[in-house]
Amino acid sequence: MIVAFSIAGTPDDSGSYAESVAEVVRIVRDSGLPSETNAMFTNLEGEWDEVMAVVKQCVDAMTAHSPRVSLVVKADIRPGHTGMLESKVRSVEERLGDG
Amino acid sequence: MIVAFSIAGTPDDSGSYAESVAEVVRIVRDSGLPSETNAMFTNLEGEWDEVMAVVKQCVDAMTAHSPRVSLVVKADIRPGHTGMLESKVRSVEERLGDG
Amino acid sequence: MIVAFSIAGTPDDSGSYAESVAEVVRIVRDSGLPSETNAMFTNLEGEWDEVMAVVKQCVDAMTAHSPRVSLVVKADIRPGHTGMLESKVRSVEERLGDG
Amino acid sequence: MIVAFSIAGTPDDSGSYAESVAEVVRIVRDSGLPSETNAMFTNLEGEWDEVMAVVKQCVDAMTAHSPRVSLVVKADIRPGHTGMLESKVRSVEERLGDG
Repeated sequence: MIVAFSIAGTPDDSGSYAESVAEVVRIVRDSGLPSETNAMFTNLEGEWDEVMAVVKQCVDAMTAHSPRVSLVVKADIRPGHTGMLESKVRSVEERLGDG
Repeated sequence: MIVAFSIAGTPDDSGSYAESVAEVVRIVRDSGLPSETNAMFTNLEGEWDEVMAVVKQCVDAMTAHSPRVSLVVKADIRPGHTGMLESKVRSVEERLGDG
Repeated sequence: MIVAFSIAGTPDDSGSYAESVAEVVRIVRDSGLPSETNAMFTNLEGEWDEVMAVVKQCVDAMTAHSPRVSLVVKADIRPGHTGMLESKVRSVEERLGDG
Repeated sequence: MIVAFSIAGTPDDSGSYAESVAEVVRIVRDSGLPSETNAMFTNLEGEWDEVMAVVKQCVDAMTAHSPRVSLVVKADIRPGHTGMLESKVRSVEERLGDG
């Protein structure tokens, strides 16, 4: 499965979340799971227990210095399929190339 | 924390998801956690491990008869706060009553 | 179609969003469209242009006093269907009653 | 503002959405707005009316051959800021490089 997730705590004085996003991305990369971070979400691939453990760790890192944390998750769950982080994009690009 | 979640598998021939939504709502109510189901999401309140165990059980029920399942989650995480399922709505209504 | 939407600006000093949520709910109710506000989302039913005009008006009200606004929307688009705000919940409850 | 959006109609017989995703991505690219498509969402940057017109066009393309369409949108609205599709990722990477 792939989860796309986005976590927000209280922003700093400039309205920027970049510092806390960096902390989250560091946790994600340290997990060793395939991931990709774009302007809106971090996509993470693995089994339910693996990916949710990482998301929980990120939430805990945020609640450590924010009294309130907002989390948005979208998951694409397709048992028996792996490598979807790349194959889904490739599959679309191939069709566009044919267009 | 409160999670709002919505799960969709492959719809039945009429395009209806009501049967599988009913199955999910049954799992949620059997969990004993405070919950509320509206037209778009089921809201569920508890600690991370409690609510995520219920969401996982719902996903497993869906993957049992759908090859692909889509899950959307929005969580409001506020350590030390409980009863938010009712207090958040009441808090808004009170302000509207003052308006 | 139904849209479930949630808007967040910068929280006030207590970490509460209730004042700005109240402002959004007031705009929604003034729109005259069928709506329902729960602990996590406001559900709003109508045609695309109708509901999106209301969502835009809510976003504008938030950006008037927050430098950065986060919006989450989930829409269930089913042309030719109306009254879904109630019928979707009733349909699930009927199945649960049969269970 | 940036919107991340994901549209799903009824999947084809193989459970694949790639054909309809390709149609959506084609509409997005023809719009001329800055965009990026990853495994879970398409990110699109512009003013509210611009990006929402594109999202509506994508929804219309889906409803043309699916009786029911699900749309998920997350928007980051920051008036006066442009080029966020790249600057947000760069800002995080810079902090990680310093880590």
